Amino acid sequence: MNQPSQEQIIKFCHDNIITDTLEMEVVPTNDGGIRLELAVAEKHTNLHSTAHGGVLTTMIDTAMGAACMARNKRVVTVSMTIDFMHAVPINTRIMTDAKILHDGRETVTCECCIVDCEGKIYAKGLAVFFVIGDFV
Amino acid sequence: MNQPSQEQIIKFCHDNIITDTLEMEVVPTNDGGIRLELAVAEKHTNLHSTAHGGVLTTMIDTAMGAACMARNKRVVTVSMTIDFMHAVPINTRIMTDAKILHDGRETVTCECCIVDCEGKIYAKGLAVFFVIGDFV
Amino acid sequence: MNQPSQEQIIKFCHDNIITDTLEMEVVPTNDGGIRLELAVAEKHTNLHSTAHGGVLTTMIDTAMGAACMARNKRVVTVSMTIDFMHAVPINTRIMTDAKILHDGRETVTCECCIVDCEGKIYAKGLAVFFVIGDFV
Amino acid sequence: MNQPSQEQIIKFCHDNIITDTLEMEVVPTNDGGIRLELAVAEKHTNLHSTAHGGVLTTMIDTAMGAACMARNKRVVTVSMTIDFMHAVPINTRIMTDAKILHDGRETVTCECCIVDCEGKIYAKGLAVFFVIGDFV
Repeated sequence: MNQPSQEQIIKFCHDNIITDTLEMEVVPTNDGGIRLELAVAEKHTNLHSTAHGGVLTTMIDTAMGAACMARNKRVVTVSMTIDFMHAVPINTRIMTDAKILHDGRETVTCECCIVDCEGKIYAKGLAVFFVIGDFV
Repeated sequence: MNQPSQEQIIKFCHDNIITDTLEMEVVPTNDGGIRLELAVAEKHTNLHSTAHGGVLTTMIDTAMGAACMARNKRVVTVSMTIDFMHAVPINTRIMTDAKILHDGRETVTCECCIVDCEGKIYAKGLAVFFVIGDFV
Repeated sequence: MNQPSQEQIIKFCHDNIITDTLEMEVVPTNDGGIRLELAVAEKHTNLHSTAHGGVLTTMIDTAMGAACMARNKRVVTVSMTIDFMHAVPINTRIMTDAKILHDGRETVTCECCIVDCEGKIYAKGLAVFFVIGDFV
Repeated sequence: MNQPSQEQIIKFCHDNIITDTLEMEVVPTNDGGIRLELAVAEKHTNLHSTAHGGVLTTMIDTAMGAACMARNKRVVTVSMTIDFMHAVPINTRIMTDAKILHDGRETVTCECCIVDCEGKIYAKGLAVFFVIGDFV
């Protein structure tokens, strides 16, 4: 089965220009995929001076999309739910942990947590993607 | 009942620093509230060169928070769902249309569409907020 | 365009056998569609002696499916979110109010409120359906 | 810490009268909690003759509530999202697998899969509950 290389997945992630706009890091993982990491800075904050929910959602959406890429699926997000459990203070380094639950021909279902390096879960997303084609 | 002025709501919106990071405009509305507007640019895009879902979510989350502010409620987002209906091409001007469905003592339920100036709906969010205090 | 008659939509609703199991009524509406109505009884309750969330979800899911039928679309539910705003006491008569937000070739996005006869909103659902074919 | 016994949790589950209306079984688990099991019958079906989404949601909501009970928390559901991955055919025996992600003072976040005895995932729910008091 054709499949993008880890280098291609990293490149595809940066093709989401918002990734660079928000200074998210695309970090290769041992399973051949990637995770997103972010050191929360002032530019990412809401009025409580913690990471804005939209920033966490951007990370989750992009990391899930990358998980679909790793299955060679080009997708668009159809529906996404995020439950927020803890505020993420400035200067915290957070990362994504995405997992595919259902890899269907027409739809893919994913989940993704936002965690810190100690595994504390700040938010969890559940989403459905519509498959529009292959990557390679 | 004490209530923030429109000027205070606009200021509170900008206290979400992500609003300025992403160059969202806070526009006063006739009902004393605000809406967010965005001219989608390259910096906001995903790999399909359309607005990233995280950007739309940031607009929706912030506009809903502002709707809560207008009721003098300081809130945190607990759960948010976004259904994406159409991709938003670069250079499209989009705006939020938020509405409070339930204004409870402990929780507030909101919905918010992302529309263009002709009323086309690109995405719709439904969210629950937890009330943590007053604004003024 | 071929389209099911109101009689066919009513019949299709009852083909969801759960509708009868839970004694939901399928009521024709003036626009040629249907709504579901339920007089909440003990059999529908949770441990707070109010309507169980699963019962409200069953109503919402079925009413949305009927709204898709009225567009001649045979669908399966892909993702559904329900926000619960008020508990529904026993003996309350509730009904659905479903609306299609996006009628796409491959997916349909719907919203649906659970209201009483005075229009009080108890719950609201937002859902995405995958189109699997025509009805007639 | 006070905590309901497994017998009390089982009893509380049946206090959700819908559990018995739909003939769901409350099965004790080794960790002192419970899971719900259902042999899908005609009475549970949608027009595709598979388990209706509302039935799966009822199982998920109840199993999550039981997981909160096991932490001695009396809760109401605030927001629930269900992603449906596979249709559940008649005569399939399905069961819940609920897990608490965040056990907060005011809110609890849970996830719950619907699986069969081979671990195949048919649906997954993510939900937020509001804490209204203790059980014992």
